[in-house]
Amino acid sequence: MQWNKLDQEPCSLSRTLSVIGDRWTLLILRDCFRKVRRFDDFQERLGIGRPVLADRLQKLVDNSVLLKAAYQDRPMRYEYRLTQKGLDLYPVIMSMNCWGDRYMPGKKGPPHLYRHVTCGHTFEPVQICSECGEELDPRGVHVEAGPGARDGAPMPVVDPPLKTARQKPKQRLKRRT
Amino acid sequence: MQWNKLDQEPCSLSRTLSVIGDRWTLLILRDCFRKVRRFDDFQERLGIGRPVLADRLQKLVDNSVLLKAAYQDRPMRYEYRLTQKGLDLYPVIMSMNCWGDRYMPGKKGPPHLYRHVTCGHTFEPVQICSECGEELDPRGVHVEAGPGARDGAPMPVVDPPLKTARQKPKQRLKRRT
Repeated sequence: MQWNKLDQEPCSLSRTLSVIGDRWTLLILRDCFRKVRRFDDFQERLGIGRPVLADRLQKLVDNSVLLKAAYQDRPMRYEYRLTQKGLDLYPVIMSMNCWGDRYMPGKKGPPHLYRHVTCGHTFEPVQICSECGEELDPRGVHVEAGPGARDGAPMPVVDPPLKTARQKPKQRLKRRT
Repeated sequence: MQWNKLDQEPCSLSRTLSVIGDRWTLLILRDCFRKVRRFDDFQERLGIGRPVLADRLQKLVDNSVLLKAAYQDRPMRYEYRLTQKGLDLYPVIMSMNCWGDRYMPGKKGPPHLYRHVTCGHTFEPVQICSECGEELDPRGVHVEAGPGARDGAPMPVVDPPLKTARQKPKQRLKRRT
């Protein structure tokens, strides 16, 4: 089968993976969202080797996902804080986490619950369309050439799902307009 | 600093990463969402070594993310299809992809656009609270012990963001109730 040229364009997913496509990096980011900031704290929580941790943190700083800031002068000590670029990775971490909760929750259920401070409820994250507010379904999304593509041919969308047992019913959201 | 026991629970993110925490696996899944199904097509598109591809596909089948189904008898040929468990990884792939679009779009802009068939518009995915419909902000989420946790102590939420320049304004969504 020949794939159209659109499929051979540099993919944004590949670009993302060049920054965060590493297990340690994703676990470090999860801890950043839990307010962990200092080298020794990351090291203690993750049980990660110090050279590997230093390498991953530096890479995140180099990519402006984290900012290295001094918090003490004598001796000089630094901590790592999420930048806005880093904070915008929250949907990635949350969607991975909640997929694990849904399909591999452990014998007693998920280890964590997420409470939305604004509304006071425990929740699951739901991904919606920015334009109409409906929950996204991969079968209802067409991928088209963007300004950075060389070829304008549309790509096929995914087929209807297989008839497999659904492990948990998903709520269908639709914003009222 | 001592972290409370809740932080040392088996994390759902770690569980997810045990299944999809590999760059090739994520690129294979991206292609699955573009209707790629056959071994040789994955191999041609990704330029991945055949033993590595076979290993990653088998792992996804073993974890019920993909289903291996015969599409031809003589000679016997198989293809790989997303199960519901696999389809539910769409938010992971989309959020990673769109973070790349936002922060590493290339000189001419993003290579791909996503059109929502239901409303007809090109869109960005937005992650909202399943209960109130408001867009999620990491600073507005508390992590608590779930039924699978051993300790009920709450975990801290992330601090306010740093004063870094926002690269692109984010639309704030709120469902009307």
